[in-house]
Amino acid sequence: MSTQWEDAAREVASALAADAVEREAKGGEPRAEVDLLRAHGLLTVPVGDWPLVHRVLAEVAAADASVGHLLGYHYLHVWRLGLFGRPEYADEARRATAEHGWFWAGVANPRDDALVMSEVDGGYLVSGRKMFATGASVADRLVVSAVHGARKVTFVCPGDAPGLRPLGDWDNLGQRLSASGGVEFTDVFVPEHDILGAQPDPADPRYPMANLPALAFQLVLSRVLTATARGALATAADYTRRFTRAWPASGVEKAVDDPHTLAAYGVLTARTDAADLLVDRAAAAFAAADAEGPALTPEQRGATGLAIASAKALASEVALEVTGRVFELTGARATANRYGLDRFWRNARTLTLHDPAVYKAAEVGRHLLTGELPPVTGYS
Amino acid sequence: MSTQWEDAAREVASALAADAVEREAKGGEPRAEVDLLRAHGLLTVPVGDWPLVHRVLAEVAAADASVGHLLGYHYLHVWRLGLFGRPEYADEARRATAEHGWFWAGVANPRDDALVMSEVDGGYLVSGRKMFATGASVADRLVVSAVHGARKVTFVCPGDAPGLRPLGDWDNLGQRLSASGGVEFTDVFVPEHDILGAQPDPADPRYPMANLPALAFQLVLSRVLTATARGALATAADYTRRFTRAWPASGVEKAVDDPHTLAAYGVLTARTDAADLLVDRAAAAFAAADAEGPALTPEQRGATGLAIASAKALASEVALEVTGRVFELTGARATANRYGLDRFWRNARTLTLHDPAVYKAAEVGRHLLTGELPPVTGYS
Amino acid sequence: MSTQWEDAAREVASALAADAVEREAKGGEPRAEVDLLRAHGLLTVPVGDWPLVHRVLAEVAAADASVGHLLGYHYLHVWRLGLFGRPEYADEARRATAEHGWFWAGVANPRDDALVMSEVDGGYLVSGRKMFATGASVADRLVVSAVHGARKVTFVCPGDAPGLRPLGDWDNLGQRLSASGGVEFTDVFVPEHDILGAQPDPADPRYPMANLPALAFQLVLSRVLTATARGALATAADYTRRFTRAWPASGVEKAVDDPHTLAAYGVLTARTDAADLLVDRAAAAFAAADAEGPALTPEQRGATGLAIASAKALASEVALEVTGRVFELTGARATANRYGLDRFWRNARTLTLHDPAVYKAAEVGRHLLTGELPPVTGYS
Amino acid sequence: MSTQWEDAAREVASALAADAVEREAKGGEPRAEVDLLRAHGLLTVPVGDWPLVHRVLAEVAAADASVGHLLGYHYLHVWRLGLFGRPEYADEARRATAEHGWFWAGVANPRDDALVMSEVDGGYLVSGRKMFATGASVADRLVVSAVHGARKVTFVCPGDAPGLRPLGDWDNLGQRLSASGGVEFTDVFVPEHDILGAQPDPADPRYPMANLPALAFQLVLSRVLTATARGALATAADYTRRFTRAWPASGVEKAVDDPHTLAAYGVLTARTDAADLLVDRAAAAFAAADAEGPALTPEQRGATGLAIASAKALASEVALEVTGRVFELTGARATANRYGLDRFWRNARTLTLHDPAVYKAAEVGRHLLTGELPPVTGYS
Repeated sequence: MSTQWEDAAREVASALAADAVEREAKGGEPRAEVDLLRAHGLLTVPVGDWPLVHRVLAEVAAADASVGHLLGYHYLHVWRLGLFGRPEYADEARRATAEHGWFWAGVANPRDDALVMSEVDGGYLVSGRKMFATGASVADRLVVSAVHGARKVTFVCPGDAPGLRPLGDWDNLGQRLSASGGVEFTDVFVPEHDILGAQPDPADPRYPMANLPALAFQLVLSRVLTATARGALATAADYTRRFTRAWPASGVEKAVDDPHTLAAYGVLTARTDAADLLVDRAAAAFAAADAEGPALTPEQRGATGLAIASAKALASEVALEVTGRVFELTGARATANRYGLDRFWRNARTLTLHDPAVYKAAEVGRHLLTGELPPVTGYS
Repeated sequence: MSTQWEDAAREVASALAADAVEREAKGGEPRAEVDLLRAHGLLTVPVGDWPLVHRVLAEVAAADASVGHLLGYHYLHVWRLGLFGRPEYADEARRATAEHGWFWAGVANPRDDALVMSEVDGGYLVSGRKMFATGASVADRLVVSAVHGARKVTFVCPGDAPGLRPLGDWDNLGQRLSASGGVEFTDVFVPEHDILGAQPDPADPRYPMANLPALAFQLVLSRVLTATARGALATAADYTRRFTRAWPASGVEKAVDDPHTLAAYGVLTARTDAADLLVDRAAAAFAAADAEGPALTPEQRGATGLAIASAKALASEVALEVTGRVFELTGARATANRYGLDRFWRNARTLTLHDPAVYKAAEVGRHLLTGELPPVTGYS
Repeated sequence: MSTQWEDAAREVASALAADAVEREAKGGEPRAEVDLLRAHGLLTVPVGDWPLVHRVLAEVAAADASVGHLLGYHYLHVWRLGLFGRPEYADEARRATAEHGWFWAGVANPRDDALVMSEVDGGYLVSGRKMFATGASVADRLVVSAVHGARKVTFVCPGDAPGLRPLGDWDNLGQRLSASGGVEFTDVFVPEHDILGAQPDPADPRYPMANLPALAFQLVLSRVLTATARGALATAADYTRRFTRAWPASGVEKAVDDPHTLAAYGVLTARTDAADLLVDRAAAAFAAADAEGPALTPEQRGATGLAIASAKALASEVALEVTGRVFELTGARATANRYGLDRFWRNARTLTLHDPAVYKAAEVGRHLLTGELPPVTGYS
Repeated sequence: MSTQWEDAAREVASALAADAVEREAKGGEPRAEVDLLRAHGLLTVPVGDWPLVHRVLAEVAAADASVGHLLGYHYLHVWRLGLFGRPEYADEARRATAEHGWFWAGVANPRDDALVMSEVDGGYLVSGRKMFATGASVADRLVVSAVHGARKVTFVCPGDAPGLRPLGDWDNLGQRLSASGGVEFTDVFVPEHDILGAQPDPADPRYPMANLPALAFQLVLSRVLTATARGALATAADYTRRFTRAWPASGVEKAVDDPHTLAAYGVLTARTDAADLLVDRAAAAFAAADAEGPALTPEQRGATGLAIASAKALASEVALEVTGRVFELTGARATANRYGLDRFWRNARTLTLHDPAVYKAAEVGRHLLTGELPPVTGYS
């Protein structure tokens, strides 16, 4: 029965919305936000129940896209522990997550130079730098990718491991509370036990499953984007109802009767709903792919990637449009910083740049034209 | 088991697609098309199984939007026989439809003056003129609305009833095979037995159910619109694959590798998929409303209307965009009339004018802002 | 004093508009249209007075885009006679044009195999096929490009030269009266005297001037496109005023008071005006480049090309949007074929495919980013 | 000879651009900015030479939209001193402006309750509050509108007049350095001498001229908007050139070769150019109207208003699109706050809400449909 989680998500969303503008303006590390998630039990929503996970994310991200982003990624890290053929390790880690309320994050930005591992007694030393490590600076546990010789290896390490230093360099337009700065590893010791495994090579039957996370991250971003649009619409509508004055030339007495306002809210709602449904479809495809486990075929992974690529492309477009246009429906006074109505656009604008939407669309177009599936990369 | 109907729909679609360009260029009454539907049993798909009805419509309308339009309306007329509290009449009419392969259409355009009924011995005489009576000129049976004094009354009459004359005035941009011309009634006799009933007044508990058809027509149009977009994409993609030459400045050798072509097909596919999902959601809402029967509340009817309004607004926008833009992906030579690639745009452009999409959007916007449900009208 | 030409253009436009729908529906060779241009003296507007030429074209093309297209190309052919270093020949040809009312067209589609010239006594024999030779089938004189060995050579020949056969294969979506079918040359004899000259090689100082026509054609297309948008707006506005009924949900009594109709006409007018001003700017740049004659530098030709590329990209976008959307402002009954309101969209859709607008935009973007000028091609 | 002013404008723009991000982040009163304008002589550009005024504004506003806004309004206030039939007063004020380097602003927001004047010995006392008084808090002289009985009266007062208090409440999304907070008047004494005059009534022949300023403000906003788009494009292009890395899936090595980046920069440039030309056209119409002086007719004022309404509607749309989309062309790292690339969008988003663009478009649409000119209001 999922009600308890959804109730918790609604409570968290309500708490986040109450002071979103102030928290966001202040910026800094989202420790209080992670504590809030922990206190309401949201860190232990059962990964694998993807429809539930998405309902929770939609609720939280509409109130605070940074926190939705952190939470979505947390779920993915907890989930992907199970993809490496070490079920006892994953079970133990999940049990400890429940017991200690661990918050998880990852270090794996594909566009930086890789972290480098060198073998030492009982494990490895890891060094290097990675940017855009969302959540790492406030995480209890990290899932990290690095290279050892020619192999890409993934391991777990504590967020406060000696030698690990958050760079504190996240001072960006949006997603200000997403702790998305870089991290530096200086001879961080990783015991053999915490090595999850190496990336299988393309000929390995587990290759599709092992590369499902790249798609999962795209899916979470898509969900956060549509939730951001939803949050913007709800917040703007509340403002319009309460504060907006009818424009004299409109000939109506109340802003909620302005024909252009009505039509625009309707169009933006319809587009947001449609994008959400496309994300739902992608989430269902992803859940089915995940359920295959090691039996996942390249074809099903590819088809899942296409569903997610469609969702991501449309969610990006819709989130930008909705969050940018709501101001037209609230009027000039809603630009006062105390309303913080721009945070939705800033969050959407920042998130949509994670990787270019046009190349997601191109994957979909190529498949329609040639039947080709997207290549396996860090983004597809 | 729905497979047989869907197989039949695919066969019909395939047959329709094969000579769509020629048939459409010739125009005229769609008798052969109705015969095709009849021959494949598609006139008797069980109304009430709305998911099946929509799958069949999507298939047929992608191949020929006129025929999809006719078929969708046929289903609605057969269905709405059951909304008047005369179950035996409806059962008998449906039985006869199955036995004789009757094709149904309607006469009810809300923007013309009403047909007028006058009482005579054993029934009524009906006179007047109605435009845009889609399918009437090729229908075996008609569902007709008229006024008798202050009441709006609905009845059934044969398509070849004495005194009934199709005006043959449908010579329009698109939906050329939808037989959407006007009809004139001159003292058409309607026996008492064929009177389905009068429109209940707003205080009557059956009022919401009795006004469900207005929404049903909007839903069918939405489905035909997204199917039209789908048909355009598939037809254009086929052309691009087979005929389009790479543009010299693209630097690629094959048109299917042009980056702009790939991205555009992807974006248009994602939008079409999203619009289709919104229509699916509306269809599910409609099915649930229909299942309520006389217990349908004004609130649930209103919510259904909102789901359909969203779908219609977005389907209109997407159908126009897709059908207009596919030419950019095929190139100049695809404007040759022998390809008939413009029929999709002409059909979409014509269908989207049935009633203004902007007022559908406004209903959705008004609900978001004020909670008001759409009023009950011939279009909402 | 330009008034006489502009008066003549207005008279021609008025005559063309009067039966545009019927003429266009009938299709066929635009002989009567060329006669009309001739009778009003429009074939002899002085090329070189480019502002006048554009005012005349704007007027004619708004009424009939096919005729605007033919007339614009005619001017370019008469003009480019002067680019080959044979001033007496050009003067004589222009004098004869004035005397006999010659209509000029060209044969030069860059995407087909070239026509081939072989030397014979006193001249050359020319053979081959070219598609999309706008106006050729109704022209008195043709300017033709062919290859002789490795050189691209341009010559003049009569429209009824023995061995020259129009293919009569122009049966396309729009520009139906533009006579844009192919032509076949079978040993067409061209006397030495009618050879205008060979294309100079890139090192030749006359190279920029010799390649100005490729830009000139893009400019004429841009003008015809904005004029098409203008024609659609004017025609639709006339319909809205005269026939459109207010939509019930609008709450207004007259369609001309519908807020969405007002805003949409305003937006489309502003965009059309802006596109027209961009074409004006391009026309001024072109006039300045033309005035340089053989002193034209690659840089100035490039800058002219950029101005024209901008104009073409925007004119394409605006023409498609305006001609497609006007139906929303007229309503469903305006789809009746007797109004022919779709001809504007069909013309715009066909013209905009001459070459892909996205590659025009890319030229402008590349220049902004890198300072590079567009390469010299048949389209830039 | 305008060169000196334009050189000065370029120098100011260059200085403003150099630390725009830091200044804007800090916010506060734009005293240093006004000093910069003063030091370079830009406060004394001759109003009336409107083409020059617009070239200066375009230069300054592209670098800093807040300062462009302040400067444009300053010109309008200096100019409108001359509209009240007190030429000696205006001359004297302009002479003093040149001598003392006065910066002018205004207090007149039409949507607040009016300031109220009461007669006292030798003049008037003025009390009340007005929001959005751009520039007032840093102005040497103010042009203020108030009501005296039934009449709307305009007067001049020093920026530091006793009883006048800036509210310091401008803490908004964009135009942060435009000093657009409110002002409170508490028994501010205005000597009779500083009364410019009363608003003539509609029957007065000077009524059109007296109401030209409402249009002039719309025009200045339009210019600032297109300049903002221009500034965003230039800043983003510089970033793309210097920092953006090619996206792996693009297949190109440098970001400046990415086909989507090239096309998008081209499209945005073309739209910005077109909007600028529409503003130029409006500026020319305005200059002609201004030159009429008291002879200005309602018809010419109306036509000027339409040209400006078109410009404003399109400039709003283009500025929002360009400033929002440039991030797609720079990539994720450009969201770092040290680049401040979002200031263009924030400025555009704030400026475009001055009054709703859709009602500007509606004026244009109404004129096309009915020939009606925009009504005389504070915004049209």
